[in-house]
Parts: sequence; C-alpha cells; structure tokens
Amino acid sequence: MDNFTFYTPTRYTFGRGAEEKVGEEAQRIGMKRVMVVYGGGSAVRSGLLGRVEKRLEEAGISYVELGGIEPNPTDPKVYEGIDLGRREGIDGLIAVGGGSVIDTAKAIALGIPYDGDFWDFYAGRLVATTALPVGVVLTIPAAGSEGSGNSVITKLDGLHKISLRTESALRPKWALLNPELTFTLPPYQTASGIADMMAHIFERYFSTTPDVEITDRVAEGVLLAIIEEAPKVMAHPDDYQARANIMWSGTLAHNGICGTGRREDWVSHFMEHEISAVYGVTHGAGLAVIIPAWMTFMADHRPEKIAQFGRRVFGVTSHDDRTAAFEGIEALTAFFRSLGLPVSFAELGIKSPDIPLLVKKLHENKGATIGGYYPLTATETMEIYKLAVR
Amino acid sequence: MDNFTFYTPTRYTFGRGAEEKVGEEAQRIGMKRVMVVYGGGSAVRSGLLGRVEKRLEEAGISYVELGGIEPNPTDPKVYEGIDLGRREGIDGLIAVGGGSVIDTAKAIALGIPYDGDFWDFYAGRLVATTALPVGVVLTIPAAGSEGSGNSVITKLDGLHKISLRTESALRPKWALLNPELTFTLPPYQTASGIADMMAHIFERYFSTTPDVEITDRVAEGVLLAIIEEAPKVMAHPDDYQARANIMWSGTLAHNGICGTGRREDWVSHFMEHEISAVYGVTHGAGLAVIIPAWMTFMADHRPEKIAQFGRRVFGVTSHDDRTAAFEGIEALTAFFRSLGLPVSFAELGIKSPDIPLLVKKLHENKGATIGGYYPLTATETMEIYKLAVR
Repeated sequence: MDNFTFYTPTRYTFGRGAEEKVGEEAQRIGMKRVMVVYGGGSAVRSGLLGRVEKRLEEAGISYVELGGIEPNPTDPKVYEGIDLGRREGIDGLIAVGGGSVIDTAKAIALGIPYDGDFWDFYAGRLVATTALPVGVVLTIPAAGSEGSGNSVITKLDGLHKISLRTESALRPKWALLNPELTFTLPPYQTASGIADMMAHIFERYFSTTPDVEITDRVAEGVLLAIIEEAPKVMAHPDDYQARANIMWSGTLAHNGICGTGRREDWVSHFMEHEISAVYGVTHGAGLAVIIPAWMTFMADHRPEKIAQFGRRVFGVTSHDDRTAAFEGIEALTAFFRSLGLPVSFAELGIKSPDIPLLVKKLHENKGATIGGYYPLTATETMEIYKLAVR
Repeated sequence: MDNFTFYTPTRYTFGRGAEEKVGEEAQRIGMKRVMVVYGGGSAVRSGLLGRVEKRLEEAGISYVELGGIEPNPTDPKVYEGIDLGRREGIDGLIAVGGGSVIDTAKAIALGIPYDGDFWDFYAGRLVATTALPVGVVLTIPAAGSEGSGNSVITKLDGLHKISLRTESALRPKWALLNPELTFTLPPYQTASGIADMMAHIFERYFSTTPDVEITDRVAEGVLLAIIEEAPKVMAHPDDYQARANIMWSGTLAHNGICGTGRREDWVSHFMEHEISAVYGVTHGAGLAVIIPAWMTFMADHRPEKIAQFGRRVFGVTSHDDRTAAFEGIEALTAFFRSLGLPVSFAELGIKSPDIPLLVKKLHENKGATIGGYYPLTATETMEIYKLAVR
C-alpha cells in the first residue's frame, strides 16, 4: 500500500425529496447569490429547475441562470459562465444535472477568482487550490463528479478533452441525490452511466501496487452491487430501490474510496476521451467499447489483476490467470451487452474509426507512454484501438 | 434504502511518517495553541510524543499536555481537561493515541465552549453542534474514533458508559495514520482492536432495512479484508502492509460508509459497554464474547442477515438460513479464537458475571427495548448474556 491522503468533505443528502434541501444547504455554507447551471430542457420541463429556484428564493438566495450545457462540455460555455458570474457578482454555483453540468460549474468556479485563463489549470500549468463553492442537485448517476475533485472539459480548438484532478478545491461542498430524479433517464443513458461508474472503479482497481486488500475488497464490493442492481433499473426504470443503489454506487465509484493507497491507471478514460472528443459519442458507451479491448490486451500482457476481477466479481473459477482473465472479460462483455451497450466501434456507430488520429491525439495530450497498470506506447494503444473495431 | 446524510470531512494522511505532518496539518486549520492529549507512558517512551511536540514547535504552535488517559475513559479526566484548556486558552486539541484518548479529547473539545456540564450532551439533554477542532495521531486501530463523530465516556458515578454520536461536530478535522506506530501493540490489544472494528461493521450490517446492496457489499468487503489481513498481523506484528490494511479497515469500519441508508443495531456495543463499565475489560475482547452470543440468539429469531454474512463473508454454502447462520457463527467464533480472543465470560476471566446487574444497567441506560435488527427486552438480553457464559 502506498502512502496517501484522503479528503472528501462533500456533504451528501440522499433520498426522496433531497432536492428540496437546496436552499438550506446553500444557506448553511453562506451562499447569497449563485449561478444555477443546467443542461438541456429536461430540468426545465420536469419542473426541477423551478423547484430548485423556488427553494433558493425562500432561503433568500438570489440567482442567475446558465443553461444549455451539452454532453462533453466545451470551453466556450465556461468562458461565458465566467463572464456572467463576474458581472453578476456570484459567490457560488449550483449545478442541476449530471457530469457535464457539474464539470462546467466547477470550471467556472475555478475561473472566476483567477485572473488568467482557466485553461491554465487544465493544461497543467497551474495547480488549482481556490474556487468558488459548488453545490449539486444530481440527475444522472454516472460521472461521479458530485463527489469528486475532478472536472473534464474539452477545448474546442484542437478537440483536447482534458480531465483536471484536484484533491479538494473542486469537490462540491454538498450534493443532493434523489433517486426519483433518475426514473426518466433514457435506457441508453442509464446504461452508459453504469459503464462509466464501473470504469471509475476499474481505473483504480487495475493497479500493480501490492497489498491493497482493503481497497480491492471495497472496489469489488461496489462492482458486485452495480452488477446486481443494473439489470433491475434497466427492466424497471422506476424501481426506486435499484435506482438508489445505482446512484450511491456512482458516487462511491469516484469519490476516491476505491483508489486509496495505490497507483491508478486511467488509460481507458484517456483512450475514450479521444473517441468522444472526435466522434461526440456518449462517454460511458465509449468506455464499454474500450474497456473490454484494454482488458483483452492486458490478459495477454499482465493478466493477474484481470483474473482476480474475473474470480471475485464474476465468480469465474479457472486456476490459470490468463484463462480466468479471458473468462472475466467475456462475462463483463456479456454484461455490457445485456444493458444494451455497444462493445465495439461498429456497434458504437463508427464504421471506420480514424485510429491513427486517435493515437496521435492521445499521446500528444498524455505523453509518449501512458497508464499505471501496464505503461503503453503508441504501438500498443494502436493495438488496443484495433481490438475495439471487431 | 432509507434516506440519509453522509458527511465525513476528516482529512486523512496515511502512511510511513504520517505523524511528521502534525505541525503542517494543525497550521492548515489555524491552530495556534493546542492541548496534546495522550494515554499512558508508551507515547512518551517511544519518543512519539516528543516528535509530535517538536513538529508543533517548528510550526509555531504552542501546547499544553494532558496525559494519563486510561482505557474506558471517565468523566473526571474530561473535567480536568476542560479546566486546563480554559485556563490555558487553547483553540484546539491533538489526540495522540487510540479511541480512549481521542474520545476524551472530543469530550473536552465539546465541553470548553459550553457553559454547562459537558455530560448534558452524553445524557441526551442537548445536541452537540459546536466543539473546538480535534486532530489525531492514531496509534491503535480499533475504535475508529479518528474518523467518526462519536465519543464514548464513562460517568464514574453509577458507571454509566455512554456513546455520544454527532453528525460532524465531533469528527476530527484531520487524522495522521502511520501503520508503523502499531507495530509494538501487544497481541491481545491488536486482536481486541480487530474485534472492535468488525463489531462496528456488524452493528450497521445487521439491519432489517431492505435493498441496501451497495452498503452490504462495501461492509462485506471491509470484513473480508480484515479476515484476510488479521492473521498476518498476529503472526508478524511488524508486517507493514498487513498493519496498513488493518489500520485503514478500522477507519472505514466506523466512518459511516458501512451504514449509509439503513437502520443500525448497536445492541452488542450496548451490552458490552455494561461489561466493560462494571468489570473493566478491554472493549474489543468484551465484544468478541457478546457478538457470537447475540448472533446465536438471532440465528433462532431472525436468521436471514446472519446467514447472508455466513455465506458472503465466510463462504458457507448451506441453503437453509438457520443452518447457514450457525455455520457463519461457528466460523466467526473460530476466527476470534485464532486471534487469541476470549469468546465467553469465563475466557474473559469473569467466572460468575452478575447478569441481573448488567441487564438492569443496560435497560436503565438504553430503555426497555433496544436494538434495530431485532428489538430486545430485558428477558431477551438476559438470555443473550447467559449464552455468553458457556
């Protein structure tokens, strides 16, 4: 086990009616004038936005709105938010939505008190330590951004999709999680969210750091719960209990608890970011394509942990690591398929992916050798992208 | 799954040399003059106390000392600390030790800014919302107090051992966890600590709240890790990796993550508190006696969750719940024995326990009917105490 720090000061309120606490929670941390950030029209149509704003008014908190955040959010919207927030003198942000909305709110929160270009932080030129406080009303369990210190933004110029990771500057101060708000998610989005949260665990779980039994067992526990509950939410979108289990799993998958004390990997995310930056696919669906390909490569090159995953999570029994790894991958692929997810570029709707372009951008953004589990060169990431064509 | 809030704002620094960060962490939250609270002589003899105080001095933080905290800490020491802290104008406390030291520091932190008697909070007459900040240098993984909002103090007058639970007022602001500091713990104390952390999970896990798969799986994961690592620390007290796994497990067992979304039980703790209050035994050893007795009663009255524990944690395969429950209890009892723990009053050194006295105090302190898994009257708790005689 490696040395680590772990600091997750987000206050979660979970359950039916959680969003009704928005005024109370904003007040508790001294918010007086906030920016309410949201995505497309669903938050408006469902009445959620109205209810949130009513509660803010009742708590004596004024607000400005920033809507229209799209999936795979980009920098122009962040600049727009920074300008608006400065002009309006806001002291905090409330994200009503999923990962894209939350990540945009975080980027704005970071940019407002900073004199230079907010992209300096994403480009790694500066370490983020100060930001306006962010609160969250979560509507999509997937990105885990409601409990993480991370934010992923795409720079339109060059389509650089970059994940910024902070220890605590970008962790939301509070998050309101009502599983009922997820009943109306379309099946594809529900399934993609499930792939995304599983990926957040895999990126931490597939590690060469030895002697991390406690972290392994917690990570496997969250995976086991997701695999148990996912078919229920697909079959019955309004199954409150299954939605609740999935929602909380999504938070635990990415708040850091599954990664303590070890080197992490993150190659599947890096490889997927290039796909969604170039082809605009849903992040979780792209992950369902890349992860089995990445694991297949690893089964031949470093099978041990893939085998452990197969045995402990899918109950495969083969003694040989390589065999157990392949059986685990087969089970995972079947699981993704059962949720209606694509598991190849073709199924993702990309007939002839421009793999040389993806590889070029990947290593431009992330360096010549990437990944913590098994460091990969461009030759090897090319091989993994090819495994995903099928 | 029930509605819940979850808020764990403790900043953990884990690993070799963690205690060297004490000045830095104290400074980060603005501590200027602190009370260093510790137990017997081992923190002095090992040089730990001196190193902590040196780091505080280097950070420009002055301190007063309060030593001599004993296991099963009592109220006179708390009053002494409150007087000392007020006289010396401290603005925070640093606990160097295990649960007793931390719990005493928390009680003092609560008492100093309060005009009345600090016992008002423990007696349930007032809700604790304000306290001086507490930091921790952990030396005993067991109580989980380094990450919990709880504190257990015994009132000498009447031997009332009471656990106070707060959402966040008593959560330490930071905790420094160096597994090396636990190498010198005597085997009995190591084993008792392991029983204590397992008990913290059981009290949350044995719940009738349905549909808590995610919380169940995380709890089972922590139990599995403990059961894997415990024999290693018993066999090799200076096995850093095993000690690290046990230490972090102890924190996760009690920071709340294993309890989200469900009614909890806590009867084993309540029943043990009476034993340690009257007979002065080590808390964890008392738990190793009471837990199998409590489970044995439950196997006959509400076996479902005991059976799930047996199957998922100890791999028992019986289809019948009652049988699986008894097999799980047998495996757990054998596990406790393998660590050198007592599993009966006799083995605990109490030949003829005064069970009527224990039952009387238990229900005086906790009410006529106690427990969340299967509410118990005095007749039933008497039966459980008797099962522990053997």
